[in-house]
Formats: sequence, C-alpha cells, structure tokens
Amino acid sequence: MKDLNSIKYNERDLVPVIAQDYETGKVLMMAYAKKEQLRKTLETGLAFYYSRSRDEEWLKGDTSGNYQKVVEVRVDCDMDSVLYIVKQDGVACHTGKFSCFYRKLNKKGELENE
Amino acid sequence: MKDLNSIKYNERDLVPVIAQDYETGKVLMMAYAKKEQLRKTLETGLAFYYSRSRDEEWLKGDTSGNYQKVVEVRVDCDMDSVLYIVKQDGVACHTGKFSCFYRKLNKKGELENE
Repeated sequence: MKDLNSIKYNERDLVPVIAQDYETGKVLMMAYAKKEQLRKTLETGLAFYYSRSRDEEWLKGDTSGNYQKVVEVRVDCDMDSVLYIVKQDGVACHTGKFSCFYRKLNKKGELENE
Repeated sequence: MKDLNSIKYNERDLVPVIAQDYETGKVLMMAYAKKEQLRKTLETGLAFYYSRSRDEEWLKGDTSGNYQKVVEVRVDCDMDSVLYIVKQDGVACHTGKFSCFYRKLNKKGELENE
C-alpha cells in the first residue's frame, strides 16, 4: 500500500504543500514539509510545515495563534505535491491578510495591490 | 513597481504554480513556470508551465485539448509562489480526473483512492 514513504520528496527531503481554506475554498499559502511534518499533521490534525529559512519544523500558529485545523490531506497524481484542506484560525498570512495570495499581476506583469 | 522580475525564482529559474478552478474552487494541480511562461500566460490568457521532466515549455492542453483559460494570476506575500485561477476545459489531470489531488491520506499516512 502506498503511504508517506511513497511521496516524492525533493533533494532537500521536502515536498511542496498547498493550504486551502475548507470554508471559503481560498488558497491560503504554499509551504513545504518533510515526511515527519506530514506524519504529525495527520496524527494531530494541526498543520505542520518545515521552514526552509529557519531550517526547522514549524507548527503553523505556534507563535501567532493562527492554527490550521486540518480536515483532509490530499496527494496529487504523481505524488510530488500535497494539499492540506484546513479550517483557518484567524488569518493565514503574516501580513494580516486572510490568504497570502492577496495580490495579482496585471497583463503587463506588474503587481497590483488590492 | 514590482513585476515579473521581482518574483523569487529558484536555482533552476522556476517558481511553483498552483492552478485553481474558477468555478468550483478546486485546487487542480501544482506545476512550475519560468518568467517566460508567466509572461505568456498573462499575455495570452492560457496557462503556460515549464515541464521539469521534458525540460521545455508546456502549454497546458496543447496535446490533450484541456486548456486552462486564466482568469487571474496571483502572487503570494513573499513572491515565491504563484496562483493561476482558471477555467478548466475538460479535466486537469492526465488520469482523467478533474483534479490531480483526487486521493487522500488517512491518519496512518496511507493513501486512499476515491
């Protein structure tokens, strides 16, 4: 049976993880996890990631209080990316926005704030 | 003004791109793009990616007919991931499923088919 060992982690043992809000369907953020963080996420029901910049495990909400309660963990067809479907406490983004994807690019490739 | 040059491409000049369906909100797939594919996506309104396995530009739907008509291109707070919001022609996944994320992991970390 396929399991967490079947996932294709990259050369740094990381897999990209998308977080999507269960209620609104909004894509909240993209981050990374190692096998250990996927395991903890499944066991605890809280979203764990691996911070590339701090090089350490990261329980989302541990400092901000903005925990993500994980409803479902999904894997894509070729098993090289993961989707957390979550109930977001507060906001997902450190800027205070609900989603990290709060800006769009116009046709000329320029960033527009909203 | 921030633009496509401000995006943080990785060491292979790629940025991860999430595709989300405009109508249903479903997360369809995750792939990668270089600056040139982001530019073409914005200009043409069709989703372009960069195939890491084939090492070439990839117009989604070019062989399958399952084009993605791009409604919006969003960027996250730290500008290292991109979100295409698309109207999906047909299905997104080469398996014939609408979304590539059609399987979930149970609490024990085992893959469950749906």
